[in-house]
Amino acid sequence: MALALAEAARGLGRTAPNPPVGCLIVRGREVVGCGFHPKAGEPHAEVFALREAGVRARGATAYVTLEPCSHHGRTPPCAEALIAAGVARVVVAALDPNPRVSGQGVRRLRDAGIDVALGVLEDLATRQQAGFRSLITRGRPWVVAKYAMTLDGKVAAAGEGNGSVSSEAARARVMGWRNELDAIAVGSGTVLADDPALTVRGVDGGRNPRPVVFDRTGRLPPGARALRPETVLVTAPTTHAAACEDSGMTVVRADDLPGALGALGSLNLSSLLLEGGPTLLSAFFAAGLVDEVRVFLAPKLLGAGLSPLTTPLRAMSDARALEDVTVEPLGPDVLVTGYLSPIPRL
Amino acid sequence: MALALAEAARGLGRTAPNPPVGCLIVRGREVVGCGFHPKAGEPHAEVFALREAGVRARGATAYVTLEPCSHHGRTPPCAEALIAAGVARVVVAALDPNPRVSGQGVRRLRDAGIDVALGVLEDLATRQQAGFRSLITRGRPWVVAKYAMTLDGKVAAAGEGNGSVSSEAARARVMGWRNELDAIAVGSGTVLADDPALTVRGVDGGRNPRPVVFDRTGRLPPGARALRPETVLVTAPTTHAAACEDSGMTVVRADDLPGALGALGSLNLSSLLLEGGPTLLSAFFAAGLVDEVRVFLAPKLLGAGLSPLTTPLRAMSDARALEDVTVEPLGPDVLVTGYLSPIPRL
Repeated sequence: MALALAEAARGLGRTAPNPPVGCLIVRGREVVGCGFHPKAGEPHAEVFALREAGVRARGATAYVTLEPCSHHGRTPPCAEALIAAGVARVVVAALDPNPRVSGQGVRRLRDAGIDVALGVLEDLATRQQAGFRSLITRGRPWVVAKYAMTLDGKVAAAGEGNGSVSSEAARARVMGWRNELDAIAVGSGTVLADDPALTVRGVDGGRNPRPVVFDRTGRLPPGARALRPETVLVTAPTTHAAACEDSGMTVVRADDLPGALGALGSLNLSSLLLEGGPTLLSAFFAAGLVDEVRVFLAPKLLGAGLSPLTTPLRAMSDARALEDVTVEPLGPDVLVTGYLSPIPRL
Repeated sequence: MALALAEAARGLGRTAPNPPVGCLIVRGREVVGCGFHPKAGEPHAEVFALREAGVRARGATAYVTLEPCSHHGRTPPCAEALIAAGVARVVVAALDPNPRVSGQGVRRLRDAGIDVALGVLEDLATRQQAGFRSLITRGRPWVVAKYAMTLDGKVAAAGEGNGSVSSEAARARVMGWRNELDAIAVGSGTVLADDPALTVRGVDGGRNPRPVVFDRTGRLPPGARALRPETVLVTAPTTHAAACEDSGMTVVRADDLPGALGALGSLNLSSLLLEGGPTLLSAFFAAGLVDEVRVFLAPKLLGAGLSPLTTPLRAMSDARALEDVTVEPLGPDVLVTGYLSPIPRL
């Protein structure tokens, strides 16, 4: 199943509104077929794996990271394909979170006499499917906040942009995340201060996430590098943004952040990497809309500077605890990750 | 040598102005004697170890965490004791940092035909001796700043004291540090806000460090728990502190922090644990007087609150990098430590 999850990961950032799925067909100790879902509209993972396995699928075991579908969508149902190929056993990591289909794929397989095992590496699978699960159950993207902070809690010096907080290793990791998430969000302050390109660099086969720029007051100059035809501009309902619309950008007009996230969900953006700065991050945090946090901690002390979060006062006992925390040394830095929301299940 | 360092650690916080030292006498694979220096005025580590070894010291190897002394102080020179006992070999972790004696103990041993090896676990030994080394070479204590911070860089909510940042495991670790450092420093703000006792709790054989209270303007009420006869009160030259002096406290009057640290050195305080708050820590950091940093990182997000450091603005490229960084998961928290100053050597 770990190999099936690695296969599935190849589709991350490319499959929305579909899930990333991987499939392995195993006969005895031999992998006779593997596949992943590359993109909505293209075949599902099971189809690629069964194609490769051919007749060797008969009597084999299929490992699938998500319950095989049982309904006719743009492609025929995968449960039927597995039955037709004669597989003897199907091992499933996680059930489909869609209440209209969940469990039906498994039932179809079992009705056909196939032995089905559920819940193998389920936690890893649901994490990998966080975006899909968020989109299908909440109608909005899974929001991952990322920032880099000194050991005295500063994300930037208070003045001009003057040097990076974290290391080259941390930046390379961020490029990997950008490649795997559907969209990347910044506020107008970050665009004005740094004019970031928000592209993926140094990743083999990498593709750029969709830039999402929050500019409520329409203060950004049209020449900013983040303002491209594929960009989604989020602005207030009455803000003038004709120049952006003329240049091909998608303009989302929303009263508040939940409304904006819903609109991004309607654009089939299943995951959003919040890259700052403190103003945007604080607004998302205050609204309870940050689902996951990934923080690089650089072992240095700055003194004065900007804090990552500046939301209204709350008591220490009201601090939001992260769940499933991981700690990983990364170059000179330390990467700490954790979840503020449970990953949507059924 | 690792066992000798563990022996030496038993004297930490008790030996100033002397160093913590441990000694093992080994014959073949058998430890025939061990000892540590418990306190200034009492015998050195070598003496305890040789006493236990008795005649079995003849031809044995002695492991000592600091170069044996060669001069007559309050006790006879240990180099002579090792020679008289007939040890064949002496393994030394680190040379004495005192320029007047460094190397002379080793020379005395070699002149007597003893085989001497130097530099075994030297880094660990010099770290253990940081206080002694600071006192003898700089005339001031080694300063260790400790704080606990949320993952968004807050050490406290901005209002009342309302809940702890870090876990029980982190607090237990701090108790161990308090037991091993000579003194513990707080500012008047912390005393007013929390009225801490600054004592050691839950450590077998623990002893309290000497409280050092920085109260420049003399604003503290006499009933504060940190104001005890053994307390050192640091205040400005013209501040009225007769009540404190009358109650037996040592009052240090200093113009600035370097002057205050020098006065603490004169009181044979070789190490100082800075326990906050942000005002005191920022003053020490701005003056370049923090030598070592130990930060607990709690995986939770607060929003608004106090930053550990609020010194004047500097550029990110001017941030002070920590050396010899360690990262350790501790209960739910992460402990990050590192050095801002090199440990004084010769």
